[in-house]
Amino acid sequence: MASVASATSAPSSQEILKNNDVAGNASSFKATDTVIQLAQTHKPKPDLNGLVFGTIFTDHMLTIEWSLEEGWQKPHIQPFGNLSIHPGCSALHYAVQLFEGMKAYRGPDNKVRLFRPMINMKRMLKSAHRACLPSFDCAELLECIRKLVEVDQDWVPHSDSASLYIRPTFLGTEPTLGVKKPRKALLFVILSPVGSYFSTGAKPVSLWADSKYIRAWRGGTGDCKMGGNYGASIYAQYEAVDYGCQQVLWLYGNDHQITEVGTMNLFLYWVNEKGEEELATPPLDGIILPGVTRQSILELARKWGEFKVSERYLTMADLRQALEENRVREMFGSGTACVVSPVGRILYQGENLHIPCEGNLPPLASRLLKELTDIQYGRTPSDWSCIV
Amino acid sequence: MASVASATSAPSSQEILKNNDVAGNASSFKATDTVIQLAQTHKPKPDLNGLVFGTIFTDHMLTIEWSLEEGWQKPHIQPFGNLSIHPGCSALHYAVQLFEGMKAYRGPDNKVRLFRPMINMKRMLKSAHRACLPSFDCAELLECIRKLVEVDQDWVPHSDSASLYIRPTFLGTEPTLGVKKPRKALLFVILSPVGSYFSTGAKPVSLWADSKYIRAWRGGTGDCKMGGNYGASIYAQYEAVDYGCQQVLWLYGNDHQITEVGTMNLFLYWVNEKGEEELATPPLDGIILPGVTRQSILELARKWGEFKVSERYLTMADLRQALEENRVREMFGSGTACVVSPVGRILYQGENLHIPCEGNLPPLASRLLKELTDIQYGRTPSDWSCIV
Repeated sequence: MASVASATSAPSSQEILKNNDVAGNASSFKATDTVIQLAQTHKPKPDLNGLVFGTIFTDHMLTIEWSLEEGWQKPHIQPFGNLSIHPGCSALHYAVQLFEGMKAYRGPDNKVRLFRPMINMKRMLKSAHRACLPSFDCAELLECIRKLVEVDQDWVPHSDSASLYIRPTFLGTEPTLGVKKPRKALLFVILSPVGSYFSTGAKPVSLWADSKYIRAWRGGTGDCKMGGNYGASIYAQYEAVDYGCQQVLWLYGNDHQITEVGTMNLFLYWVNEKGEEELATPPLDGIILPGVTRQSILELARKWGEFKVSERYLTMADLRQALEENRVREMFGSGTACVVSPVGRILYQGENLHIPCEGNLPPLASRLLKELTDIQYGRTPSDWSCIV
Repeated sequence: MASVASATSAPSSQEILKNNDVAGNASSFKATDTVIQLAQTHKPKPDLNGLVFGTIFTDHMLTIEWSLEEGWQKPHIQPFGNLSIHPGCSALHYAVQLFEGMKAYRGPDNKVRLFRPMINMKRMLKSAHRACLPSFDCAELLECIRKLVEVDQDWVPHSDSASLYIRPTFLGTEPTLGVKKPRKALLFVILSPVGSYFSTGAKPVSLWADSKYIRAWRGGTGDCKMGGNYGASIYAQYEAVDYGCQQVLWLYGNDHQITEVGTMNLFLYWVNEKGEEELATPPLDGIILPGVTRQSILELARKWGEFKVSERYLTMADLRQALEENRVREMFGSGTACVVSPVGRILYQGENLHIPCEGNLPPLASRLLKELTDIQYGRTPSDWSCIV
């Protein structure tokens, strides 16, 4: 396997971090210090058909400990197993915790690739800063993850649509009960093989749009991937199901701005108020998670130059009026799990709004899915690919 | 030690839960099933002078496991020690977690008392509901906690101002990565001796009031004691320190409503806009934690009947005008740790607002501190006391 450094013209971690007030490279663990302890036994690989997301884990995990006194310790790749955690741990009491989500894909050339992984590393560092957890060097962490995937490379599915999900996690492990900056922390990474999202065909999702629950707010943590953003959303998710919908369309403000859907970013492809063909998604104003797929869709569509591409506010009133005037073409969520997930129906103020969803995976969503997965699986060469 | 059931005329858990849509008693662990495994060694008791909050734990802990398939297991009182946690645990990734804070006090009669513990139990059940964690019978949990305190009774300080802090915690332990209702959970309780909050005299706190960070918002979880509310606050706390203040005064909305201070509720004792002497605290409208001390202060002051007692909105403009007109008498935080914590200064929009703080612990705060601690330590008989 080639090293991450050989990943063609992708920007280096230093370039990405330049001009960023989160330094992250002053003091860090080093990937070259990694201690590898291989598992004595190997779990059987699961059948990926019908496999529920995130239920099976590979044979190894990466752990890296930090303390205020001693700084970062050596990274360890070790057999997957339970963590021993002090019951006063700040990750358990005060949710001093964050995570990332990314994937490794096996291409037709049998090479394993990551997709724009430095964006995940940089976002993780930003989340760490917000959670008062210590900085690290993004390139070092990526190289540690590369080593872990290399050790468990047999777990990367031989498939043109399944993949190996990578879950970096970072916890405050301060073992005392004061609400304060942790003096101990644990960064770990686990791996989980996942099947094809669209194995049984695309299924447009139905959404419950209500301002009863608010996912994130200005002055909060909605733009960071912190655990608290997710646990608080589960209750609303079940209420959506009670209303006969599958996911929550998260609204914000008195004008019911459309923000995110479930755990995904949201796109509206429409003819806007000015009669312009436009692909629009809410701007990164502090309450929106800066998704890697979101960014990639924006960049791809801007490169095409075929229609207007906007980061702009969208309200439920805008959407309703556009539907009445037949100006909506497609609406879809975007995320690492599915790439794109088309929206078919929105329940809002007692009314079902039907979103056009031709063939269940309408043309723009379908085109984006193909272009992005072609890059992810190495079928199309791209500097967004990072060979493991 | 007497059983909780003997706690004079305090309302039973059934009475408290009556008319509450959180049932909580359909399926629960039973305190009579508790398995007790005593520690073979005992840690030395710490010197409580200068002891930092929550840094020392007693010899035992309570753990109770739940799963969807098997329901609640038997409670276990066992030696204090690390938890073995699956690295995919939903408490670590999605902050499916909540806690409570309460204390055991030793009286001059050598009896150990809890203070209105059923309010904590009920709030914990409400938090569990919001976090999609399973229900339990509040009276059963309280009896389990009583047993734990009984086992570690030597750890309750012989002091008229120190106490034993009790930290119930409840985690989702679902070991898979989907964002969903956990099918496994762990409730545990740990104990930590704490010194006198005012051992070196009351010190009025200085607050940084800024709308840059928002603690909680409508449609969120600010009225539940969920971990995510706390971890997200640490960053702001350090920014307050950068501004030369000790804690954050949490504002809300465009009118800069005063909501909470640090991890405490907030009280303003003033002559209001209508010229009425008033003790005021923000109403429980979804963004305020329903503190046990908050409720007790309101009930005590209403019983006195000496001035108006209000749950009402207070804005920074109200406060600033009242200060200009010399209508502010006292301002203080309230919480389990300190009972009351007087406020001396607020930095707001670049201006230092000085709050009257006669003798560092002004008359009303001082009177509330005395009345409440007299009840807590059993110096004044009260049906708010619950003998262990």
